[in-house]
Amino acid sequence: MRERTIAFLIFPEITPLDLVGPLQVLKALEGSSDLRTVTVGERIEPIETDLPFRIVPERTLDDVPEPYGIVVPGGLIGPFHAMASDRIMGWLGRAAAKASFVSSVCTGSLVLAALGLLEGKKATTHWSFLPHLARFGATPVKGRWVEDGRVITAAGVSAGIDMALALGARLTNEASAKAAQLILEYEPEPPLGPIAWEGSETLVQGMGAVVAQRLPGILGNKPELLAKFAP
Amino acid sequence: MRERTIAFLIFPEITPLDLVGPLQVLKALEGSSDLRTVTVGERIEPIETDLPFRIVPERTLDDVPEPYGIVVPGGLIGPFHAMASDRIMGWLGRAAAKASFVSSVCTGSLVLAALGLLEGKKATTHWSFLPHLARFGATPVKGRWVEDGRVITAAGVSAGIDMALALGARLTNEASAKAAQLILEYEPEPPLGPIAWEGSETLVQGMGAVVAQRLPGILGNKPELLAKFAP
Repeated sequence: MRERTIAFLIFPEITPLDLVGPLQVLKALEGSSDLRTVTVGERIEPIETDLPFRIVPERTLDDVPEPYGIVVPGGLIGPFHAMASDRIMGWLGRAAAKASFVSSVCTGSLVLAALGLLEGKKATTHWSFLPHLARFGATPVKGRWVEDGRVITAAGVSAGIDMALALGARLTNEASAKAAQLILEYEPEPPLGPIAWEGSETLVQGMGAVVAQRLPGILGNKPELLAKFAP
Repeated sequence: MRERTIAFLIFPEITPLDLVGPLQVLKALEGSSDLRTVTVGERIEPIETDLPFRIVPERTLDDVPEPYGIVVPGGLIGPFHAMASDRIMGWLGRAAAKASFVSSVCTGSLVLAALGLLEGKKATTHWSFLPHLARFGATPVKGRWVEDGRVITAAGVSAGIDMALALGARLTNEASAKAAQLILEYEPEPPLGPIAWEGSETLVQGMGAVVAQRLPGILGNKPELLAKFAP
């Protein structure tokens, strides 16, 4: 049986929950389907994250040239490292052209946008970066996840779990996806209730300051992209 | 200002979401508090997980002898690696004796149980291992997370996020914890509804077979513990 490989892209300073949420869901489907998950990076060596640990991808980009599907995680700074890398952007552009689905979590959608993959499409991202999507010709939609053809984008960080359950059900069947949900005991009880959106303006200012400080050093080689993220 | 260090323990074959969920929550509180998150392992080198990537902890156990709080992740096989390691169990026993809180996600509670830390206490774990807690003198409770004094145990995998938000609010304040929730855009919408518990018996059989096959090779050095997990 031919396997359907789903490649999770890793680059410096990702937000690990963006990666691990959907990966843990789709990995749980391997036993009952032909899906196979893999992580890919430029090199098989430790890569910094925005948490106090490093991640070592399983394969190189060249090892997995034609995945069935792609998942791109985000982070406050991580996506700019991806955009700055011609090897990553080259692989993603070629792989996305042939893939049956291309998906992102959080600001991973900005990497897809930078490649032109969201042009004319509805898409979402972390709430704080929603306005940026329009600068790349996408129609920003506030939703837990947004599907437009073969492109599926999830909202911020934790939304990747919800997206992956929906995606997993579509790639296999609902019973298998519900078994994955059972394995992960995913029946959330957010202890503090719904999100307190009134804190968002302060948070955006703080995050914007970090991005403004670090971006020129990371994306200086791509002035046209740098301009899209200028404050 | 003295920092309060929260040490996340890493050992082979953990379920990364057990670790990353609460770590991403508590890391987001660093900016507004004296909390500092760190990951610790036997060695600063790549460690296998149950996903297709390895994790490199930031520090060794010896680097962080007296953390303010401890978080122990789980996994189907991971906890048995922890129990088999005298270095890990020695560190955890000494650190837990002085810590202000000791917490676990999923089957991480079995590691606490093996150290006698749950004796006479109410505790929870992944639903599939709840009966095992009683063998260590704990009172198993089905709940998203369970607090008994300074011991806080979370249910399976994804429950670590809920536990960490509640814990984070207690360690700092509700406004800070709600800011972390906003950063992680944590307002879940499980696309397939509640958990389908009718699938649990089949799943337990499959998981039990894996544990029965691997356990003797991992925990053969601790026959008294091995017996507690015999089928």
